[in-house]
Amino acid sequence: MSRGSGLRLGEIVARLGGELLGDPAVEITQVAPLPRARRDEIGFVSRAAFRRQLAHTRAGAVIVPPELQAEAKTAAIVTRDPYAYFAKVSALLNPPESLVPGIHPDAVVEPGAVIAPGARIGALAWIGPGARIGDGTLIAEGCYIGENVNIGRDCRLYPRVTVYHDCVIGDRVVMHSGVVIGADGFGYAPEDGRWLKIPQIGRVMIGDDVDIGANTTIDRGALDDTVIEEGVKLDNQIQIGHNCRIGAHTGIAGCVGIAGSTVIGRHCMIGGAAVIGGHLEIADRVIISGATAVPSSVTKAGQYTSIYPLLPHREWLKMTVQLRNIERLAERVRHLEKQLAEQQRIKP
Amino acid sequence: MSRGSGLRLGEIVARLGGELLGDPAVEITQVAPLPRARRDEIGFVSRAAFRRQLAHTRAGAVIVPPELQAEAKTAAIVTRDPYAYFAKVSALLNPPESLVPGIHPDAVVEPGAVIAPGARIGALAWIGPGARIGDGTLIAEGCYIGENVNIGRDCRLYPRVTVYHDCVIGDRVVMHSGVVIGADGFGYAPEDGRWLKIPQIGRVMIGDDVDIGANTTIDRGALDDTVIEEGVKLDNQIQIGHNCRIGAHTGIAGCVGIAGSTVIGRHCMIGGAAVIGGHLEIADRVIISGATAVPSSVTKAGQYTSIYPLLPHREWLKMTVQLRNIERLAERVRHLEKQLAEQQRIKP
Amino acid sequence: MSRGSGLRLGEIVARLGGELLGDPAVEITQVAPLPRARRDEIGFVSRAAFRRQLAHTRAGAVIVPPELQAEAKTAAIVTRDPYAYFAKVSALLNPPESLVPGIHPDAVVEPGAVIAPGARIGALAWIGPGARIGDGTLIAEGCYIGENVNIGRDCRLYPRVTVYHDCVIGDRVVMHSGVVIGADGFGYAPEDGRWLKIPQIGRVMIGDDVDIGANTTIDRGALDDTVIEEGVKLDNQIQIGHNCRIGAHTGIAGCVGIAGSTVIGRHCMIGGAAVIGGHLEIADRVIISGATAVPSSVTKAGQYTSIYPLLPHREWLKMTVQLRNIERLAERVRHLEKQLAEQQRIKP
Repeated sequence: MSRGSGLRLGEIVARLGGELLGDPAVEITQVAPLPRARRDEIGFVSRAAFRRQLAHTRAGAVIVPPELQAEAKTAAIVTRDPYAYFAKVSALLNPPESLVPGIHPDAVVEPGAVIAPGARIGALAWIGPGARIGDGTLIAEGCYIGENVNIGRDCRLYPRVTVYHDCVIGDRVVMHSGVVIGADGFGYAPEDGRWLKIPQIGRVMIGDDVDIGANTTIDRGALDDTVIEEGVKLDNQIQIGHNCRIGAHTGIAGCVGIAGSTVIGRHCMIGGAAVIGGHLEIADRVIISGATAVPSSVTKAGQYTSIYPLLPHREWLKMTVQLRNIERLAERVRHLEKQLAEQQRIKP
Repeated sequence: MSRGSGLRLGEIVARLGGELLGDPAVEITQVAPLPRARRDEIGFVSRAAFRRQLAHTRAGAVIVPPELQAEAKTAAIVTRDPYAYFAKVSALLNPPESLVPGIHPDAVVEPGAVIAPGARIGALAWIGPGARIGDGTLIAEGCYIGENVNIGRDCRLYPRVTVYHDCVIGDRVVMHSGVVIGADGFGYAPEDGRWLKIPQIGRVMIGDDVDIGANTTIDRGALDDTVIEEGVKLDNQIQIGHNCRIGAHTGIAGCVGIAGSTVIGRHCMIGGAAVIGGHLEIADRVIISGATAVPSSVTKAGQYTSIYPLLPHREWLKMTVQLRNIERLAERVRHLEKQLAEQQRIKP
Repeated sequence: MSRGSGLRLGEIVARLGGELLGDPAVEITQVAPLPRARRDEIGFVSRAAFRRQLAHTRAGAVIVPPELQAEAKTAAIVTRDPYAYFAKVSALLNPPESLVPGIHPDAVVEPGAVIAPGARIGALAWIGPGARIGDGTLIAEGCYIGENVNIGRDCRLYPRVTVYHDCVIGDRVVMHSGVVIGADGFGYAPEDGRWLKIPQIGRVMIGDDVDIGANTTIDRGALDDTVIEEGVKLDNQIQIGHNCRIGAHTGIAGCVGIAGSTVIGRHCMIGGAAVIGGHLEIADRVIISGATAVPSSVTKAGQYTSIYPLLPHREWLKMTVQLRNIERLAERVRHLEKQLAEQQRIKP
């Protein structure tokens, strides 16, 4: 585990705000979970449910909400949102490795590519003709940047990212290894039992501050572009079909599949392995539970779910047999209702 | 968006058939959706549902079925299947980039590989000993072509495709970035709580005109080969286990998983994120809905589905509790039936 | 299909045990399924269900359990577990290609990397500063081994594997193409509708004898490490979130997603495309069926399932409508029960 350079509590509060209880000279070198934090580390408790961690920690300091500040046995930073504060402290203590600009002699930069002087191109990367790479951007080892791709400033493309021709990437975009941006969408017209390919002539447009996890794929548009708006966070192994639009600041967990031409709103949260059909609209601030299939549009904010109950295999078998017979069951209930109604009619 | 070289309507109809209504000299440079098409672009309407687009378009021409030809306000090409026709026009206007044959000086071609003179090997690609690459085939940047792999003519392997040793690829096969062909299948024999690996000594055989999407994986066979027949179209992030056979002209959407030794028929359509168990047989012309689990063979053509209903989370909770109690519910209905039958027996 | 060097039946039994019935001089060059095995090949039957294969095979020898030995028409090796024995025979006949140590001149090994003299580094691989590669280990073409990564002995990293900085890999670990180890976990704190990244400062620790399939991703820990214990076998396209721990000798089939901080026991079997939620505990020896969603912890060994029934689409529609009405159905049953109870009370 890397160890950042230390910061005093006083410096932390000066930079990030919050109220400090305790000695501002205490030096913190790393963040850690409270149960194993050491004297030079800082942890956090965000909810009363974890208050017990405050009593036993050996951390040098804790980040707590006002309602728990009395329970801290160590130095404490009091703030309304300890988790967000913790994220900021960790970012201070663990800054991304600083970039040494330059082009590795084993990179291949084709004539006509424009690499900003403050960018870094790793070994065995390939930069196509007409591509533009902004200042402060890292194109790590083995990446492929296609013809006429435009990548902004301060991006970080980890090793072996592929960006197909003509795609446009904003500033501060992070892409992890194995990401593929701009491969052809899955578009075919059937004719006489065969598939005719529809040329995919759109692009992928990625906004600022988007993060994309390992082995995620985003297809280029068929005619129009596929668009990922600013601030979207995508986990690993997500598939986004052609002509989708993902609204700003939406977060999508791993293994999600989104079929073509679907528009997802802003500030949505899509749980892991959810499956979203094609040509749908999902409103802003919709939460889709993990492992949930979405076959139709969702027009109203809120949480939506479709998960079949998990059971021991034998119980599952029995429940499932009953479900398969549910129409028959409803029929029997209808019959009972009729019989009873008849009885009551007959009764004097 | 790239702009192909233009074609006159007269030339298009001469090449592709259909009946032209209007000026054959109108020049078309690109395809586009009708609502945003411009004077040098052509769009299509395949169904009456979209007829309104005909009235308002600024396109230079439209492709329409006979029943809508009277509604075209512009030049029109009349054909029974406008979508397939549109695909062909787009293919004419957007031909794949022409291939400049040759081996990039930064490619690594091991001794004993045979590269046809009309093939192109990109920078940072690796071609193993005994591999054969056919004429007109592109092996793009960063691909890995294993020992003794045989790749046919006019294939297009996008950057960073991996083909393991001994696999055989037909003609006109397209593979997108991150595809892995011929990795070991998942074969282990349990012994004393450990797993003994079964060497995977089969190959992957891919027929002509197969397309494979980004990050899709197809495992080599355990003893026999894994086979993808001609004309199969695979989307992104599909996993095909060892010893599967996918029948000709079947289309499979993204994120589908197919376990080992399953045989899928010809002309099937498998929806996105479907999961198909191992050692099954799926008949010809079967349609599996997206997000559907297939735990047993399907012997008859038709569409099959298994999707739990999507509901607002609270309603889902309630419905799911009822489902868990369905056996008890059936028991109560049985009890009611018995009681009622008894009443009727008792009645004088 | 490669052909190993031959072994006589006598040598096989001398090395692997079992009782030989027949001529020890029979030479076997390969394993094969009995229905197509030839005279120089060996097959197996593990269960009476397949006994008919014994009568018709042309194999040179068969591996059978004691209860079927009388039915063998050929030379036979009798053993209690024919499948495990078959795995071992195949391993003898199909040893992994022997490694020629050395660093390919087109590999990039940064200063400060330590490559054991018996390791092999393929062309276009990149080995970062401070990385250590053990004896007998293959780092194939196009792999990326990050700064300070430690990889043990006799590992086999197939082409285009990525291991991020600081991760630790045991001995005899196999990773297939497209694997990404140690990318950032999906950790963000929400603040004012935006996502603050939590730096991911843990590592991935992989034990001995772990196999990892193509395009599988395992994220580095947020604060602590992500741990894969010894003997775990992972298929293709699996996603394992940050801070997970997978217990020793657990096997996980393709396309499984496991969300962050989940702990899975030892000797578990997780079926293909299962989805396991975050922060859960799965006990030892749990079997999760394929395509099953696991939203809560499983504390007891046994098999667990959640699969909605597969039906022809129209029947599925009807069943699903009934399910959506199940609360109303239960209400009607309650009403019937009340009516009947009332009737009985009224009755003289």
